[in-house]
Amino acid sequence: MSPFLQLALALMVIITMAKLAGYLSYRLGQPAVLGELLVGLLLGPSLLDFLHLSFFTTEAHTDQVIHELAEFGVLLLMFIAGLDLHLSDLVKSGKVSALAGTLGVVAPVGMGYVLGKLFGMTDTGALFVGLTLAATSVSISAQTLMELNVLRSRVGVSLLGAAVFDDILVVLGLSIFLALTGDGGGSGLGAIVVTVLRMAAFILIGMVIGIALIPDRLVRWTSRLPISQGLISFVFAVMLLYAWSAEVLGGMAAITGAFLAGLVFGRSPLKERIETGISTIAYSVFVPIFFVNIGLVANARELTGDSLVLMIGMVLVAIVSKVLGAGLGARLGGLTNREALQLGVGMMSRGEVGLIVVTVGVNNGLIEPEVFAAVVGVVILTTLLTPPLLRSLFDRPKPAEVVTVKNPSMGDAS
Amino acid sequence: MSPFLQLALALMVIITMAKLAGYLSYRLGQPAVLGELLVGLLLGPSLLDFLHLSFFTTEAHTDQVIHELAEFGVLLLMFIAGLDLHLSDLVKSGKVSALAGTLGVVAPVGMGYVLGKLFGMTDTGALFVGLTLAATSVSISAQTLMELNVLRSRVGVSLLGAAVFDDILVVLGLSIFLALTGDGGGSGLGAIVVTVLRMAAFILIGMVIGIALIPDRLVRWTSRLPISQGLISFVFAVMLLYAWSAEVLGGMAAITGAFLAGLVFGRSPLKERIETGISTIAYSVFVPIFFVNIGLVANARELTGDSLVLMIGMVLVAIVSKVLGAGLGARLGGLTNREALQLGVGMMSRGEVGLIVVTVGVNNGLIEPEVFAAVVGVVILTTLLTPPLLRSLFDRPKPAEVVTVKNPSMGDAS
Repeated sequence: MSPFLQLALALMVIITMAKLAGYLSYRLGQPAVLGELLVGLLLGPSLLDFLHLSFFTTEAHTDQVIHELAEFGVLLLMFIAGLDLHLSDLVKSGKVSALAGTLGVVAPVGMGYVLGKLFGMTDTGALFVGLTLAATSVSISAQTLMELNVLRSRVGVSLLGAAVFDDILVVLGLSIFLALTGDGGGSGLGAIVVTVLRMAAFILIGMVIGIALIPDRLVRWTSRLPISQGLISFVFAVMLLYAWSAEVLGGMAAITGAFLAGLVFGRSPLKERIETGISTIAYSVFVPIFFVNIGLVANARELTGDSLVLMIGMVLVAIVSKVLGAGLGARLGGLTNREALQLGVGMMSRGEVGLIVVTVGVNNGLIEPEVFAAVVGVVILTTLLTPPLLRSLFDRPKPAEVVTVKNPSMGDAS
Repeated sequence: MSPFLQLALALMVIITMAKLAGYLSYRLGQPAVLGELLVGLLLGPSLLDFLHLSFFTTEAHTDQVIHELAEFGVLLLMFIAGLDLHLSDLVKSGKVSALAGTLGVVAPVGMGYVLGKLFGMTDTGALFVGLTLAATSVSISAQTLMELNVLRSRVGVSLLGAAVFDDILVVLGLSIFLALTGDGGGSGLGAIVVTVLRMAAFILIGMVIGIALIPDRLVRWTSRLPISQGLISFVFAVMLLYAWSAEVLGGMAAITGAFLAGLVFGRSPLKERIETGISTIAYSVFVPIFFVNIGLVANARELTGDSLVLMIGMVLVAIVSKVLGAGLGARLGGLTNREALQLGVGMMSRGEVGLIVVTVGVNNGLIEPEVFAAVVGVVILTTLLTPPLLRSLFDRPKPAEVVTVKNPSMGDAS
């Protein structure tokens, strides 16, 4: 088989299995991403190791190409997250969300750092372990609260707002982190200031120029061109431009650039059309490749001895730090003890962003592959635990308040 | 820069330049594909050689990944061609189309073979040169006839029908050719019979099973699944399955499999939705990569001495053989001399399919790279020459008969 045929075969298997697993997962009351991760583990070195079966030749480097296609999936996910960001959620719940979101990031970073040091990691590695545990995925909680008819309660609205804070803090945190540990970074105070100023300048310039030119003028122009898919190819190219220049010019993570591009296009009157087109490209090709690729990269067989203990430690830290941090923030913001606990548990589950952060970490050589497998374990276990725990903290449903919620944070990543 | 960032940068440049060039080309009254080819030549080794600038490292093998992404573009183009095939055009113009389409393929193959032998090629190489010259791209002619208000005349309808014949014959011819020259092929009569039977069996089984299961049942099921883009990811995966198994099981070209998959989905009641989704993926990402990649692979600088003479010879053969072959077929089918000449000239321009055929030939080592550059020259020159020649053969427009035509053959590949 030619390299291309090997790639075509691999993608066919990956996309088909991902979608089937996502569907099964949904039927079992779980988010689709859980099924896609598990099918990745099934196909990966943990079990079948399908990319190393005899018909995949090493010269074809199919695994490397799949890895790169998966990275386009990450960019598209972050772009859609930016496009969908509900700034109105922030305003509504203001103080509670800000406190819960911030402490819900600070606590996992701090406790993760301590855990990493206990396992003999460097400061950089240990801090990064904390960062991988910082990002909440609120979609499964939002769905649970919706079933309980309490998504539009004070807890529910604060939860959605805190998740927005969480997303932004983690993306910025990751970028600052990369900037400081990258080639140009240094540990002196001067170097830190320069790095942060460079980042801030990039974000400012990127947003100002972007918002001045793109949402109205360029979007309108490209959408009227007499060529096929003028608008969507423009959006795709701009997303790549922001991602590339965020890393090369801004010295931060490429995903931050994709996220900024999403924020810019989110201000366009043609936002719906952009979301339809980009979602088609994302969810039918690149995003399933990303989720399955997580399982293709992680190797559960390596989870023995110290690695297994590390994973168990990370799962415990993930749960305790988020419930305590976000819960304390919510309590300080004015919620009751019971409401604060509900919000903390609602912030507990991890998902896409955690996986994206750990992918960036491994690609940049900041953490060991064993952390990768541990984060996959964290995502799977917290996702399984959150809905029953959350249900147990609420009284039974009040049937009068059914409201639908569209796309809380990155929630439709199925 | 990481390999992924290099790839992201390259794709950003390729997609942006392709769409801008397509637009400029349209504004100059030319088909978009012409601009995309020229921009490929500009970016490729003929001029800038942009993929070998210093920031593209060889370890990142960006050129190879782009090559593979381009091949997905080819599959998507062939899938859409199958999806859009107007069998009704065949029925309407029946005899004339069959004769013009068939002789319009036979003549270029024969004359191309003679030309190849004059240049000292093997029988296989010479026949393949003929095959690259066989495929008409009718979109530019259809557009010209539309402007002249004669697309629904006897000549226009026969032209569209002949182009359908042409597409099918070239796809089948390429498949038979590959089957006979491939690993399992032989030159004995027995081997030929076995090869053709295997192909026929694959097409028959693929179509029967496909039509029984896919257009109604599976399309309806996947379109209702509670997962993102269930239908489109299903279509994409099935296209890959047909493409892969056409080559591995049927012993023919992967593009034939994608074309068959298009025919199968074309029978679905959700055809429009499928076309919208697949077109988004195709024309905003993969197809522009394909067209630009043609220019990235072809090197006009190699067109010196014998290579230049070969290209000039191929351009002449392309024009003469098509006008004579298709024209003779049309005359035998009952058109007048003048109508037959109009139809022959209308069949003259080459495009996507010729480029696809030559790509397959180079990938399989059947022809020299110099033929590749020559075919690019044939496409560019015949595309430029056809509209003025065609206009000169018609009287001035009769304003009463304006009809629009949707997607003649693969005509919207902009």
